Amino acid sequence: MEGHLTDGVVEVGANGRERYYDSRGYGRPRGEGVDLAPVEAAHLLYRGDLDAVDGTGLGGFLADNDGVVVPFLVYKDLRERGFYVSPAREGWVEDADGADFVVHPRGDGPWDGTVEHRVRVVGERASVALGSLGDVVLAVVDEESELTYLETDRPDVEGSNVASEFPTVDGDLLGDRVLCWDPPAALYERGFYGQPLDHEGGAVQLSLLEAASLTERGALSVDGGTDAIMARGRSAEGDRFDRRYTVYRALREQGVVPKTGFKFGADFRTYDGVEHIDDLGHSELLVRVLPAGVERSPREIALDVRLAHGVRKRMLFALVGSGSVRWLSVGRLTP
Amino acid sequence: MEGHLTDGVVEVGANGRERYYDSRGYGRPRGEGVDLAPVEAAHLLYRGDLDAVDGTGLGGFLADNDGVVVPFLVYKDLRERGFYVSPAREGWVEDADGADFVVHPRGDGPWDGTVEHRVRVVGERASVALGSLGDVVLAVVDEESELTYLETDRPDVEGSNVASEFPTVDGDLLGDRVLCWDPPAALYERGFYGQPLDHEGGAVQLSLLEAASLTERGALSVDGGTDAIMARGRSAEGDRFDRRYTVYRALREQGVVPKTGFKFGADFRTYDGVEHIDDLGHSELLVRVLPAGVERSPREIALDVRLAHGVRKRMLFALVGSGSVRWLSVGRLTP
Repeated sequence: MEGHLTDGVVEVGANGRERYYDSRGYGRPRGEGVDLAPVEAAHLLYRGDLDAVDGTGLGGFLADNDGVVVPFLVYKDLRERGFYVSPAREGWVEDADGADFVVHPRGDGPWDGTVEHRVRVVGERASVALGSLGDVVLAVVDEESELTYLETDRPDVEGSNVASEFPTVDGDLLGDRVLCWDPPAALYERGFYGQPLDHEGGAVQLSLLEAASLTERGALSVDGGTDAIMARGRSAEGDRFDRRYTVYRALREQGVVPKTGFKFGADFRTYDGVEHIDDLGHSELLVRVLPAGVERSPREIALDVRLAHGVRKRMLFALVGSGSVRWLSVGRLTP
Repeated sequence: MEGHLTDGVVEVGANGRERYYDSRGYGRPRGEGVDLAPVEAAHLLYRGDLDAVDGTGLGGFLADNDGVVVPFLVYKDLRERGFYVSPAREGWVEDADGADFVVHPRGDGPWDGTVEHRVRVVGERASVALGSLGDVVLAVVDEESELTYLETDRPDVEGSNVASEFPTVDGDLLGDRVLCWDPPAALYERGFYGQPLDHEGGAVQLSLLEAASLTERGALSVDGGTDAIMARGRSAEGDRFDRRYTVYRALREQGVVPKTGFKFGADFRTYDGVEHIDDLGHSELLVRVLPAGVERSPREIALDVRLAHGVRKRMLFALVGSGSVRWLSVGRLTP
């Protein structure tokens, strides 16, 4: 059969509805005929189930509509994985906003109105606003046309750590760290603050973030107090320091212990349920702190997710607005 | 004993030479006395082997010289690993340029003039010009005072692949890729160009980089030729596309096959000795393409190195100047 491209849909008349929609979940019915999204028409041309669109085959159709190429690769892959896939067009699916496709649960079709995944298609070179994620799967088509699916979610972050109590500690602000020459053992061993200068204990070095959160709750005494520490941090990192401090404090308040994620190229790794430093569990999250409005390339996102996966952690982005933090987790997905 | 800070060195008189230099490799002799670098004086104060500098102990000395804190942490760590370490000061060691310390081979001391590592100390928040690396070890002190050593080298990149011969292929430039509907099997199977549209073979999708390198050697025919492909790439990536193409071509010319490194957040992964696609070896290098003058934070470098290590590859930075490529490999080191 033959289709005709009109107003962004490919119309197929006659018994198109029975042939393409009823039996195989393509398009939307129009009387006895069917309206196909261009990507569906491309797939039918590719399969040889549609002879032509306005007289041309797949090559010509893609050449005339080259914006269809990348979505076509994703649509084709999802179909080959055994899913019915509906183009997320107004009136075709509910909540089309921010998605290109709705993937139906295995065995369900467009007539069921059920949703397994909402999928947004992006090329490797796109720029993705992280704030727009959380309820979609990113289908990234890289420059060699390989596909990567990234699941996004907006989780709550909660741990079971309780702030440990210890007498106020004295510290010296030295460069961009604070040295406590004679701290109570609980500072490091139970609060998991800082890093001993020696394996045998004794002096403990605190990061500026740890120091600021301790002075703020009156557990650390440093010349100039919190202000002096914050000033030191800002002179080194600018606004970034304030964002990182907002996240550090939010994690501690949620009962999670943040430690530096430097070795993983992240801002923090986190621990839950720290009773004593000697029986520390596996750190669960890798946290990257970013401004709320940030855009990242799929390549940057893939790098973080790949690394977190490789070290058995969950990748969590902390998007910091004015004083508030929004959590976004991203992980690999195999549909 | 007591030292006095003068002109950036801590002078210890009397039998300082015998006590600190001859027996334990600190400082440089001056008659019967010794000149200590501030970091060495800090270490001796810390060990309790020096009583005071100008009347103050370690805390006061570091407070007065807080630029010494970070190098002190590295010096202390290297000493504890059993090395003699010489501050890289003019006249103290050869080739002091770009280094903070010279680490002598185990068992050797400053009097031997031998070199195991040249070490540059950087804080996590520093910014590192990649072009300045290649003959030093970076000792990165993160915000929690943990140390990471990164070995840098300027390797040659050479592989054993030979350009495979096949008749000129026709392709369509569609969006930011090229589709070859009916290519010879050798294009993908032996040349390892592109990605089949189907597992059963048939149509092959080429990246813009692959397509440009093929049109340039007359192996691919596309409307508009190399210029059209380059224009498409530049409209998507700007100068970055030219840099990546320079590196892609250099790798192919060196007998190495570059494929996308997207899944690793890099520009390329590379294969050597590709005879046939069915017996592809493990890919050896992860390549990140950057402008020659680029500066990176230690955190960014650590992220790349950690990931490459996790997937058993070597991290290679390709620094692209005007048409030329300089290779820089970076890896973890345990001194």
